[in-house]
Amino acid sequence: MPALHPKHIHGIEGQDPLWERIREETRIAIAGEAILASFMHATILHHEELESALSFHLANQLDSPSASSMMLRDVFLEAFSSDETTRRAIRDDLNAVLERDSACHEYHLPFLYFKGFHALQIHRVGHWLWQQGRHSLALFLQSRMAQKFAIDIHPAAILGHGILLDHGSGLVVGETAVVGNRVSILQSVTLGGTGKVDGDRHPKIGDGVLISAGAKILGNIRVGEGAKVGAGSVVLKDVPPHTTVAGVPARVVGVPTSENPALDMDHDFPESDW
Amino acid sequence: MPALHPKHIHGIEGQDPLWERIREETRIAIAGEAILASFMHATILHHEELESALSFHLANQLDSPSASSMMLRDVFLEAFSSDETTRRAIRDDLNAVLERDSACHEYHLPFLYFKGFHALQIHRVGHWLWQQGRHSLALFLQSRMAQKFAIDIHPAAILGHGILLDHGSGLVVGETAVVGNRVSILQSVTLGGTGKVDGDRHPKIGDGVLISAGAKILGNIRVGEGAKVGAGSVVLKDVPPHTTVAGVPARVVGVPTSENPALDMDHDFPESDW
Amino acid sequence: MPALHPKHIHGIEGQDPLWERIREETRIAIAGEAILASFMHATILHHEELESALSFHLANQLDSPSASSMMLRDVFLEAFSSDETTRRAIRDDLNAVLERDSACHEYHLPFLYFKGFHALQIHRVGHWLWQQGRHSLALFLQSRMAQKFAIDIHPAAILGHGILLDHGSGLVVGETAVVGNRVSILQSVTLGGTGKVDGDRHPKIGDGVLISAGAKILGNIRVGEGAKVGAGSVVLKDVPPHTTVAGVPARVVGVPTSENPALDMDHDFPESDW
Amino acid sequence: MPALHPKHIHGIEGQDPLWERIREETRIAIAGEAILASFMHATILHHEELESALSFHLANQLDSPSASSMMLRDVFLEAFSSDETTRRAIRDDLNAVLERDSACHEYHLPFLYFKGFHALQIHRVGHWLWQQGRHSLALFLQSRMAQKFAIDIHPAAILGHGILLDHGSGLVVGETAVVGNRVSILQSVTLGGTGKVDGDRHPKIGDGVLISAGAKILGNIRVGEGAKVGAGSVVLKDVPPHTTVAGVPARVVGVPTSENPALDMDHDFPESDW
Amino acid sequence: MPALHPKHIHGIEGQDPLWERIREETRIAIAGEAILASFMHATILHHEELESALSFHLANQLDSPSASSMMLRDVFLEAFSSDETTRRAIRDDLNAVLERDSACHEYHLPFLYFKGFHALQIHRVGHWLWQQGRHSLALFLQSRMAQKFAIDIHPAAILGHGILLDHGSGLVVGETAVVGNRVSILQSVTLGGTGKVDGDRHPKIGDGVLISAGAKILGNIRVGEGAKVGAGSVVLKDVPPHTTVAGVPARVVGVPTSENPALDMDHDFPESDW
Amino acid sequence: MPALHPKHIHGIEGQDPLWERIREETRIAIAGEAILASFMHATILHHEELESALSFHLANQLDSPSASSMMLRDVFLEAFSSDETTRRAIRDDLNAVLERDSACHEYHLPFLYFKGFHALQIHRVGHWLWQQGRHSLALFLQSRMAQKFAIDIHPAAILGHGILLDHGSGLVVGETAVVGNRVSILQSVTLGGTGKVDGDRHPKIGDGVLISAGAKILGNIRVGEGAKVGAGSVVLKDVPPHTTVAGVPARVVGVPTSENPALDMDHDFPESDW
Repeated sequence: MPALHPKHIHGIEGQDPLWERIREETRIAIAGEAILASFMHATILHHEELESALSFHLANQLDSPSASSMMLRDVFLEAFSSDETTRRAIRDDLNAVLERDSACHEYHLPFLYFKGFHALQIHRVGHWLWQQGRHSLALFLQSRMAQKFAIDIHPAAILGHGILLDHGSGLVVGETAVVGNRVSILQSVTLGGTGKVDGDRHPKIGDGVLISAGAKILGNIRVGEGAKVGAGSVVLKDVPPHTTVAGVPARVVGVPTSENPALDMDHDFPESDW
Repeated sequence: MPALHPKHIHGIEGQDPLWERIREETRIAIAGEAILASFMHATILHHEELESALSFHLANQLDSPSASSMMLRDVFLEAFSSDETTRRAIRDDLNAVLERDSACHEYHLPFLYFKGFHALQIHRVGHWLWQQGRHSLALFLQSRMAQKFAIDIHPAAILGHGILLDHGSGLVVGETAVVGNRVSILQSVTLGGTGKVDGDRHPKIGDGVLISAGAKILGNIRVGEGAKVGAGSVVLKDVPPHTTVAGVPARVVGVPTSENPALDMDHDFPESDW
Repeated sequence: MPALHPKHIHGIEGQDPLWERIREETRIAIAGEAILASFMHATILHHEELESALSFHLANQLDSPSASSMMLRDVFLEAFSSDETTRRAIRDDLNAVLERDSACHEYHLPFLYFKGFHALQIHRVGHWLWQQGRHSLALFLQSRMAQKFAIDIHPAAILGHGILLDHGSGLVVGETAVVGNRVSILQSVTLGGTGKVDGDRHPKIGDGVLISAGAKILGNIRVGEGAKVGAGSVVLKDVPPHTTVAGVPARVVGVPTSENPALDMDHDFPESDW
Repeated sequence: MPALHPKHIHGIEGQDPLWERIREETRIAIAGEAILASFMHATILHHEELESALSFHLANQLDSPSASSMMLRDVFLEAFSSDETTRRAIRDDLNAVLERDSACHEYHLPFLYFKGFHALQIHRVGHWLWQQGRHSLALFLQSRMAQKFAIDIHPAAILGHGILLDHGSGLVVGETAVVGNRVSILQSVTLGGTGKVDGDRHPKIGDGVLISAGAKILGNIRVGEGAKVGAGSVVLKDVPPHTTVAGVPARVVGVPTSENPALDMDHDFPESDW
Repeated sequence: MPALHPKHIHGIEGQDPLWERIREETRIAIAGEAILASFMHATILHHEELESALSFHLANQLDSPSASSMMLRDVFLEAFSSDETTRRAIRDDLNAVLERDSACHEYHLPFLYFKGFHALQIHRVGHWLWQQGRHSLALFLQSRMAQKFAIDIHPAAILGHGILLDHGSGLVVGETAVVGNRVSILQSVTLGGTGKVDGDRHPKIGDGVLISAGAKILGNIRVGEGAKVGAGSVVLKDVPPHTTVAGVPARVVGVPTSENPALDMDHDFPESDW
Repeated sequence: MPALHPKHIHGIEGQDPLWERIREETRIAIAGEAILASFMHATILHHEELESALSFHLANQLDSPSASSMMLRDVFLEAFSSDETTRRAIRDDLNAVLERDSACHEYHLPFLYFKGFHALQIHRVGHWLWQQGRHSLALFLQSRMAQKFAIDIHPAAILGHGILLDHGSGLVVGETAVVGNRVSILQSVTLGGTGKVDGDRHPKIGDGVLISAGAKILGNIRVGEGAKVGAGSVVLKDVPPHTTVAGVPARVVGVPTSENPALDMDHDFPESDW
């Protein structure tokens, strides 16, 4: 099936083509693999709405004696129903996976399986709690996410729409970090602070930025829009927009081949000036 | 006890000396530690054959409301019983740990405890499913593995025999990656793609290669047999056989001191030409 | 509430101000968030002593069909009650978080939520078992810790007091590693061996050292007291005391701005001599 | 605390004195028993409304791999919110326990602990499903109830308000049974059918009837209002109103000492005419 | 759908019409109730054969930390595959429910939901184990059955084919009891011993007997074929064939209206001679 | 093995022959049945003392999200260690099974499997709590026992030593009931109250009494020592010592053949005077 038209991702004329697509994909998957029928029925087909299903699936994964899935689901549903921004972000994030991950051509795959997507949505709920002053519960969710997915995002961090956390293991995002829209972040990346001072001490990442695997970006610095951070780089100072940086410590090594490197997922970088 | 003779790893004259050894080691361990008796009986001594025990142990670890251990175990048993190659690979992988991990002198330790070994065997089953077109279930297994072990191997990736995934946390292996025989890969390594194009876009790793901790190898490039990739390196172009590369981006910095650096696990590399 | 006076961390005149503080913080948190009341009552308020609560909480997190929480708790309680050093270390480690983590101002947060803290305390119990020759159970705990937290510390490794494992995901510490007091270690760090020889083959880290995110320190080398290892560095040879090293491979790039970089958590480093 | 005024059981002026009472009793219980604080917070204090708490508690008890607590809770909540009759019945049933059980003086006790009360409310939901033609799910709930509580009530059976199922173990109520209001039924009672014919074949129990422990009432017979059925009786034909029957088979042995023997719970009966 | 022809219950020409029927009924049930789709897929549709499904379902219900569902399922499968008699008995018992329970017109209902049926099949496995001298495991199964279903059948007891344990709660069957074919036993029945002597001390129940709710039959006595035991009776001496007994203690009160009272399920009995 | 000498049941010269016997029996059982090895190691062999094992086993069975096994075990251990009477009673109750149950010749069987024994020991702990005014927790334990075992004993009820609750399903014992020493009670028995008055309203059962299956004893009446209550009887008035009563309602029908009918377990009774 072709990808959905971007306009349809957030619904059209009271319909939800994205959720319909996910259900249709799921029906096909079940037909081919009886072992998964039980899981897919409970998680997808049982639910009339995407938000009902997502809250069910996330709560199921975070279930523990410390906080039952029933309790957690109430929190997720409350967040999704009271916050239109989050509902839009969920769909933009799903779209981002299809748009950028060459190995993924079906919407139900990130919905069911990609822990980067799951952690991101849990963060969105945690951030919504944090904004309302419910810090304890937000920190609890962060802790469960870190333990379950090895992805550690402080609930105060601000993340835009259309984010792809690819694979995600080892990702750390600090309290005062800000990430723009349409950003792609690979595994083992750190957006970390430096020093012990309170206050604004984590990176600000512009729109469309690509951060390759294992990059560490440290301190209250700015990575300009459309920039690319090479794999394994350690970035300690500002990165100008639309430049490529790489190395330990990172230096400007070139210019990305497109406006939005996050969408191209081209992790190569020139070595000529080394 | 001395290591088993390599010829005996895959059985001899209808006997299975490896499984006998594992059971014997386990009996000794139980005698010294009553707390583990329950676990070791259920996981090892209860089983007449290695494959029965391994399917039990892996299913136990992946058990979730989404797919019960009983269902998963049927899949593992089916794979192990129908695929002689996988059965041989399991034994070669166990042997690889004993051969190369200085801290490990007993076969039951990786069998019971090493998540790199567990993830590798789950991948082998996932890959067997993938080859039969059962992509849904293969992706489900990948997802459970990624969540449980923080090890993310696409089921289409082709891995040889005698692989050591040491520690394993943070490992990512992409869809079209190919890994030869007798390769050692440390934690936080990425064998990743670059760009959004479909098709062959991940690294090809030759026999006997050693990939040290945190190395990122990106794109459809070739790491020649007997090569060594230094810790923290970012490899963006082909690596000739029997060379050592290191750095961000990686350059040739020398020649490994042996034919098969994977077997030596010598992670040092010269800095002379920096 | 202001931080506790360091003298009071280990108790004063038969009182335990630290545990009282944690309980008081918890009562305040419950008042603001009913969803967590159940968890916090069971984990904190139900317990008269810190060690009772910590053993309960850790056992709860490691609970599995392989070893029930009840069994594990007996082991933790035995270790905590028979080993005064461990009891002191727990308190020093809690204090280290408050002292160095700008985002954390309450003692109950690391106690309940920080997986670096949890893994560290499980290691302390595992190490206590290892010293008594109970290697099987120590390796079992290591395995559970690695699976649950993506933190892998060999039980033979020797870790001092006042350690901060910040975030922790991806950390690997080898068998013969030694870590001094007041050390801070970020996520994705490796203190690894090199070569296949048995015996002493892992790093020795001096007091007050700061190891930034993603650094790999390999081999039986010495990182001198008060040194700083930059993010993403690969360290293959000795680091003199009170120097800053960075790069792949790492070189001396400067001098930390304080005696104890671990306490400052300043991850910046100069690039001037590159 | 004195019992609530009957008028207040169903709420008064937008208030819910019953739920407030249950919460108040629970706060007192927690103050005296820290071990239960966790359970009581999650089950009572966390919930603003009785129906939210009851659906949570019942779902928790019926949770199984076959149907998760999250799924079941949605069903309970749907029934409670769409059916005012059920909401009234819940309160009448709670009141019945306080009114008739000499050992029980607090409303939170049946709410939390009495399996007769729990089974009765599950039946009410099952009956609501049955009436809508959702027979499969109704039978599923019956099955879970029978397994969990040893109480087996066919979802088609019609039960009135203010029912006390005291202890409840072994109770069986058949498909076409009808039970009036203010009835008390002890443990091991059967309201069973006789013969294989379809159609109306189970007892009809009038208002205010008391059925003592172990009584078996079989066939489409009528037990008149205000009647009393002695313990261990086997009733095979109609029982006139306001009479006491006893024996195997049961005969009229006297007249109850009150209008509503169900409220008196007087299980004695005369032997004079034997 | 009409009941299956009795000849087809055990399969015909390599086909298994009973299993096909159960699957067809289940597909219809799923179409009407999405909540059960997950459970029914996992328990019925996922399985090619009745025995595979039944072993899965029973193991799921007996799952506990003491013996995992995976272990138990192996035992059930072994019993079902090695014992043709048991396979026939399962089908006869299913047929007995349809034949005699007026409230049940579908084969999948007892298969999925009726605890009397489940306990009976677990007993069949336990008895098979007992016959092979595996008394420990047989007693373990009895214990799990008693706890889970409140049905307690000693594994040495011999039960025929086509048995209906209706509702089942409270049933106790002793070690040397023997039950013939086509017997119906209601809830709270005891087939008990008397005295402390070892050896044969429990009842022998003939073919076609009906034992009504709450009857206690005690001692090594014989209930002749086609007899009926009234509800609540206490039987202490032999019952001639084709007679009805009732009372405490039981006396002959008449003659059943059919050859096989177990098939008619007519629980009425005459009182004339009292 | 012969039964232990009664003098040795409570220990002799600092030894605990009963616990040694149970462990020895368990070792033999394991040797014959590998499937149970895991369970038996965790529950018996892992424990140095009977009380440690029993608290572990009971807590395991009552484990639920409402109160974890860890919490419950602390309560059981506290009761067993602070109350010598309970410790003696446990042993007397175990001995009672061996002494009276013809089907049971090994001490580990009731310890591991008999729910009557388990419920009785949970009651002993609940009663200990009740006596200290911890009514909430005592009622919680009663509720868990009723749900898990279908055995419902009010924690205020006073039970003597050497009690056999045979099978146990359906047993109900009321608040002010008192049961003497060396009493045997079969399944489905009720020791119930009558009327709604507070205060003393349940039966008092003398030493050595045998209460057969299904008997209902109602009201503040006295069953004299050495009396026997026939199966299915309904007892509404005092029973003289050393008499046999039976019927609905019960009448004196004879005299037991021994001083302590509870020890003989002879459930027969004469019908001559009916």
